[in-house]
Amino acid sequence: MSIKNHIERAQKDVVATLQQHFNQPLDTEETVKNATQYGLFNGGKRLRPFLVYATGKMLGANHQDLNVLAAAIECIHSYSLVHDDLPAMDDDDLRRGRPTCHIEFGEANAILAGDALQTLAFELIANHKFECSSQTQVKMIATLAHASGLQGMVGGQGLDIAATDKVITVQELERIHKLKTGALINCAITLGALCSEKADQQTLENLSVFGYAIGLAFQVHDDILDVEGDTVILGKPQGSDIAANKATYPALLGMLGAKEKAQNLIQQAHEALANIDADTTLLASLANYLIERDH
Amino acid sequence: MSIKNHIERAQKDVVATLQQHFNQPLDTEETVKNATQYGLFNGGKRLRPFLVYATGKMLGANHQDLNVLAAAIECIHSYSLVHDDLPAMDDDDLRRGRPTCHIEFGEANAILAGDALQTLAFELIANHKFECSSQTQVKMIATLAHASGLQGMVGGQGLDIAATDKVITVQELERIHKLKTGALINCAITLGALCSEKADQQTLENLSVFGYAIGLAFQVHDDILDVEGDTVILGKPQGSDIAANKATYPALLGMLGAKEKAQNLIQQAHEALANIDADTTLLASLANYLIERDH
Repeated sequence: MSIKNHIERAQKDVVATLQQHFNQPLDTEETVKNATQYGLFNGGKRLRPFLVYATGKMLGANHQDLNVLAAAIECIHSYSLVHDDLPAMDDDDLRRGRPTCHIEFGEANAILAGDALQTLAFELIANHKFECSSQTQVKMIATLAHASGLQGMVGGQGLDIAATDKVITVQELERIHKLKTGALINCAITLGALCSEKADQQTLENLSVFGYAIGLAFQVHDDILDVEGDTVILGKPQGSDIAANKATYPALLGMLGAKEKAQNLIQQAHEALANIDADTTLLASLANYLIERDH
Repeated sequence: MSIKNHIERAQKDVVATLQQHFNQPLDTEETVKNATQYGLFNGGKRLRPFLVYATGKMLGANHQDLNVLAAAIECIHSYSLVHDDLPAMDDDDLRRGRPTCHIEFGEANAILAGDALQTLAFELIANHKFECSSQTQVKMIATLAHASGLQGMVGGQGLDIAATDKVITVQELERIHKLKTGALINCAITLGALCSEKADQQTLENLSVFGYAIGLAFQVHDDILDVEGDTVILGKPQGSDIAANKATYPALLGMLGAKEKAQNLIQQAHEALANIDADTTLLASLANYLIERDH
């Protein structure tokens, strides 16, 4: 299978798992429920679920367990997109070619949908009967929470807002991305590894180096696409970072410097994989794919 | 000790537990961190923490374990207040006599602070080494998530928004409160009981009847205070429900009918306690206190 086929398989599996949850009768309010599903079933790339599956499978984890972890991490990612798009945050009307959640359902319902998606992430993991131990289950919840909160994604979003309209250094930009997107991407890999209960400390550390390297490369490439990409393929207006006065790698390093940085990060990622005693082919293909994609 | 002393003790213990968390060095953005603490250290009544402690102690749970559960549930409650106050939701400028979080820190930071508080709830429980088993720890996380999400607090908030400016029945109002506030109040009691690992199914069910009865009585009394209370003592403008065109018990049942309903609910709560084989004195005092308080 090509990397694209593997990504499509992950998309299919995670969407099926999430749909299964929403196919149950839920005692709740319909509009917020619909807004929650709208925020979730949005044609996303499902990069984090892919990383959960790829890492977990590589280390022999159970597929049903990985489904739940993939679904949970996508709930966190989706909630962050719904909230980031709000008028008080990035004020985006369009995401992946569709109206954003607050445009479709109003701001109040979008705030609640984001809140519900975050809760759902923890509910899914806590409600599943894993093949691995309850101790590991608790550790996976702790890992997801740490990556999502003040010292992870939310902290990064705070740094991002604080840096808007300001001149910042490459180091500061790197800190923003390490928290804002790196923490959750890395968490996806860690969750897959923890779930197998077969990764030793050294493997976890190498996977973490790999995770932060591809997470940053992903972001650098996103910044490049914002300049060079196509609005229709991107599903959002090309040039939106520049319009929002956000610091980007091409702005700080020049376009050539940014492309070189992305290449170097992928090189680091490959070196980390080389130290892992398992078949890392799929993760290696993903690393290459991340800086070749056009959206 | 009087019930007020017990409540003050719970307030002190939960605040100390939360402060301990924020006294650690946290790798994050300062403004969002400050907004998060502002949303948390707000002089709240800490009713939910009190219920965790009172129920847990009654059944012999470990005090340190209860500290963590009390802190976690207060994080969920605080996040819901920060988000409910937002302009797109209830648009409140004042809470407990202070500017609301978004007035103090801006909307974007308030959204993120609420998000971070929700995450923190799950992080605190998942990071603590409980005396009880990991299975119970997972069950407590599942219970908190269920009470907070679409089928609990967030669903109730959705119903509340959907009902604004509409004529609804007492049954519909009850469903709103059962989800919006009842689920989390009940959860506090369940968490305390689960943590002891000593409550059988019958006890859990009686506690649940007690929890929903006092939760609803609390809300009925809040509606009464909104009409009869004093703005200074309440810390929010008296009459704000009526101004916001919200359905209330006094509006639907008349003031006498609302007071009778609150009394009946507390009666139900006492009957549920009578069926529990433990010293329920403190929970019984709390039930009486809830419909006698002036704020």
